[in-house]
Amino acid sequence: MKRKVYVTGSRPDMQVPFSEIDLSGGAEPVRLYDTSGPAGAVPLDDGDQAGPHAAGRPGEALDVTGLPPIRRPWITERADVELRSAMGTANSGRTVWRAAPGRRVTQLAYARAGTITPEMEFAAIREGIEPAVVRDEIAAGRAILPCNINHPESEPMLIGERFLVKINANIGTSAVTSSIAEEVDKLRWACQWGADTVMDLSTGRHIHQTREGILRSSPVPIGTVPLYQALEKVSGDPQQLSWPVYRDTVIEQAEQGVDYMTVHAGVLLEHLPLTAGRVTGIVSRGGSIMAAWALGHGEQNFLYTRFAELCEIFAAYDVAFSLGDGLRPGSIADANDAAQFAELATQGELTRIAWEHDVQIMNEGPGHVPMHKIHENVVKQKLWCGNAPFYTLGPLTTDIAPGYDHITSAIGAAMIAMYGTALLCYVTPKEHLGLPNREDVKAGVIAYKIAAHAADLAKGHPSAQAWDDALSRARFDFRWEDQFNLALDPDTARAFHDETLPAPGAKSARFCSMCGPAFCSMKISHELLDSSQLTSSKRNLPLISSSLGGDSQDPLTNPAD
Amino acid sequence: MKRKVYVTGSRPDMQVPFSEIDLSGGAEPVRLYDTSGPAGAVPLDDGDQAGPHAAGRPGEALDVTGLPPIRRPWITERADVELRSAMGTANSGRTVWRAAPGRRVTQLAYARAGTITPEMEFAAIREGIEPAVVRDEIAAGRAILPCNINHPESEPMLIGERFLVKINANIGTSAVTSSIAEEVDKLRWACQWGADTVMDLSTGRHIHQTREGILRSSPVPIGTVPLYQALEKVSGDPQQLSWPVYRDTVIEQAEQGVDYMTVHAGVLLEHLPLTAGRVTGIVSRGGSIMAAWALGHGEQNFLYTRFAELCEIFAAYDVAFSLGDGLRPGSIADANDAAQFAELATQGELTRIAWEHDVQIMNEGPGHVPMHKIHENVVKQKLWCGNAPFYTLGPLTTDIAPGYDHITSAIGAAMIAMYGTALLCYVTPKEHLGLPNREDVKAGVIAYKIAAHAADLAKGHPSAQAWDDALSRARFDFRWEDQFNLALDPDTARAFHDETLPAPGAKSARFCSMCGPAFCSMKISHELLDSSQLTSSKRNLPLISSSLGGDSQDPLTNPAD
Repeated sequence: MKRKVYVTGSRPDMQVPFSEIDLSGGAEPVRLYDTSGPAGAVPLDDGDQAGPHAAGRPGEALDVTGLPPIRRPWITERADVELRSAMGTANSGRTVWRAAPGRRVTQLAYARAGTITPEMEFAAIREGIEPAVVRDEIAAGRAILPCNINHPESEPMLIGERFLVKINANIGTSAVTSSIAEEVDKLRWACQWGADTVMDLSTGRHIHQTREGILRSSPVPIGTVPLYQALEKVSGDPQQLSWPVYRDTVIEQAEQGVDYMTVHAGVLLEHLPLTAGRVTGIVSRGGSIMAAWALGHGEQNFLYTRFAELCEIFAAYDVAFSLGDGLRPGSIADANDAAQFAELATQGELTRIAWEHDVQIMNEGPGHVPMHKIHENVVKQKLWCGNAPFYTLGPLTTDIAPGYDHITSAIGAAMIAMYGTALLCYVTPKEHLGLPNREDVKAGVIAYKIAAHAADLAKGHPSAQAWDDALSRARFDFRWEDQFNLALDPDTARAFHDETLPAPGAKSARFCSMCGPAFCSMKISHELLDSSQLTSSKRNLPLISSSLGGDSQDPLTNPAD
Repeated sequence: MKRKVYVTGSRPDMQVPFSEIDLSGGAEPVRLYDTSGPAGAVPLDDGDQAGPHAAGRPGEALDVTGLPPIRRPWITERADVELRSAMGTANSGRTVWRAAPGRRVTQLAYARAGTITPEMEFAAIREGIEPAVVRDEIAAGRAILPCNINHPESEPMLIGERFLVKINANIGTSAVTSSIAEEVDKLRWACQWGADTVMDLSTGRHIHQTREGILRSSPVPIGTVPLYQALEKVSGDPQQLSWPVYRDTVIEQAEQGVDYMTVHAGVLLEHLPLTAGRVTGIVSRGGSIMAAWALGHGEQNFLYTRFAELCEIFAAYDVAFSLGDGLRPGSIADANDAAQFAELATQGELTRIAWEHDVQIMNEGPGHVPMHKIHENVVKQKLWCGNAPFYTLGPLTTDIAPGYDHITSAIGAAMIAMYGTALLCYVTPKEHLGLPNREDVKAGVIAYKIAAHAADLAKGHPSAQAWDDALSRARFDFRWEDQFNLALDPDTARAFHDETLPAPGAKSARFCSMCGPAFCSMKISHELLDSSQLTSSKRNLPLISSSLGGDSQDPLTNPAD
């Protein structure tokens, strides 16, 4: 069975979660990275959508709409934050945490000062990597640890090439469909299946309330695109956008606890003509909105001109930048074009400004890219953006399969992660067709867990292959229950097996319905091992190729041979 | 709408099939490679399992259990075959085609003689490549055109690095489950969705009859593993296997029309101790059977010692070899090990023997391989096997996701195809868990069509990107019906869209439910293009980075800015 276990760090309030899977037949239990948070350890069944779930720390009452603020003591002990009246209009009446005057309360600032914070140690234990390595990677800007001081419910995690590849799940309402309850459910569902971060991309009404529900329920860092809410505040007219409206929105969200924000500051006015000949124009929502604003006003993108001011806000809450790729390619035809790379170069410029302000930052990347053009994206991003973490959307490796873009993009995602991308934004089967529902979220998360893990194996992360080996040993030993429990999705693996062999006895059978009992290669393989024939066979049997090729006998004329 | 069209070759009886998709808005129709055969042009709906399907050549009566023998005149015109009494026991009473004494009736023999056969021209038209190139690739052994003279129903196709990447779907009964009717239905279903070849891996009872039903219904080349039927003939006991039983089985299947056969001739007795320390031993059914035979008898694998005799049989019907990889890795841990590569080296030796007999041949490859070890497989196969076509099973890039191995392996398949693999054997979601059903077959085919097409794009096949571009243009223009019709799976794309926006008006809407009307980047992008702002914007706006970074204003103290 799979269950949640906690490893205690250097202080008793540091309880680091893992999933542990007990195995049969004397095999050692397997311990896996766990993203499900205090609300759940075991994947939910499809039918089980209501109420809090078992597990959690012993003796602790859980309210899934308000997770325990595990990081609160770590944040306040540093004595660099203060409780203040909220400034964001929608937060009026609330008190929130903010940096004390003149302080930058970011993990980057702490790392640069040589400090290993509890957050860093927590994340290091999850990764099985030395805390000093974590501190050094953050200090160098090669990794981020997104953890807004107003989101103390989050379990610290790392985004960086040196660490396990992470995946992000996008959720959020659109004007056409969904509700707050549905989105909170999608959040919990995504974390159960392994989402490392979640972006709330809500548009339409109730953006603030939806986000509040998500943040208070979320054990993982939450990202947003503040521009979406800013646009709602000006009734959806890009021309009415302004720096004050945008800034107030950013502060409102920072006060709520958003851990990272996508900012399309790299979309410059002079880049826009480069998109005119594209097959699919500008396909980023934020990119198209800022393009409309800049062209309408004949002015430079205010997110670019005001970037240093944004950095000051971000530093006061430890919000991390996710620099948007507003000009990413939306089709195979547009991949790696001048518009895309012009913006990437600007991202490099902005990355260095964020670092000057001690603000954590990662860079967003494409999109739609054929396989042979993927590597160039990583090479240029590393070079131009100083090895800041790369965060890509797929990429989709072909445009021809709407309805299956979790697969077209899992191919690209696995490859780009192998080349060094740190965070993969999932794509669901509904991409290009509609808002994903619960099952689409699961399909997207699973496809991306596969891509991320395949990349971890290819990169040789120290903990990666043990999982594969445990599952393969269970397979070779016909330990069916162990196989199911070790599977990324135990429910589906078990259901598929039981479709043809539902009887309890089949769970200890030395075959399955794929080949049947007489044709199971693993069964035969075991018999050879058991009989010792394999190891005692003559190793130096003479090669008999001299008898080959020169046989003049015609077998067709000697059927009775 | 999608419909079947035929292009006439250099003779009136050469009707080369394509799918053609009419587009709206004045866009040119798109013509795609088509594998569905005379029985079907349009993908079947899920509920539509019965009866023959529309389309087909005008005026021609179709019986889906007996497709028209389109190649019969091409075969007989060459005057190198003769109608003979069948030799295979199960075929007694039948007359079958066989090479006239002393003739080798293979496409390789014809290509080496400088002949462009109708089969080669047909396949060249499908690929959009010159027939002389096809002949030269076959003559060099870099491509095969599997087309048994007793399977005249098949539509000629090419397997080779220079051509479109092809996919194979495995079907077939096991002792535990399925029936002949179900397998014929899976065959047609697989071809509808794009399978280029199908392997009948039936075990259990009724192998001969199942294969007969499949061959007579199949517009694509059919592959088998004769060893499975030979083992049934000796009551499932590997020790009772013998060359005469095996040879008779091969002849029986060649007389029925099997186009290529997997032969595990590279599994040598001296390789077997190399598998003793593996995590998952021997995972090929054929490999484990021959290992059991060789170890039990203390003799070399008879498929190796009798290989030249097999070549003579294959040359008499134009059966192609698919050299089995009986020692392929069955887990990440076993990838690229000594056992695997020892067999690959032997495959190289056997490939040259087949070529000496004018027999077409390809090499089978893994299996389970982490991404960073995939390239080495292709490099060694090309080098050791003289650039014969490579045919791989996936590879799966991780072991942790039973239930999703169509995805774990589509990642590896796309990559290995990009590196030069010509034929990809699909893996379904049921892999390792049970016999695939109809929906699993579709899921496997779709995942592999994606992998193959992604590789075609990466390799720059001349016809590949036009499909992506047509779909992306339809997407950017909000031509929803065109998007659906161009999709690899129109049914699923349409159903996903209609889930949230079923009204007919939504099919012309300039948004979908993913982002809603106000946040559609493509809509905004169009408005920018329409207003000419994009092309007339100032291209030389001065960079304003001088104003960045030096801003000392604290935005948090000036909220009313």
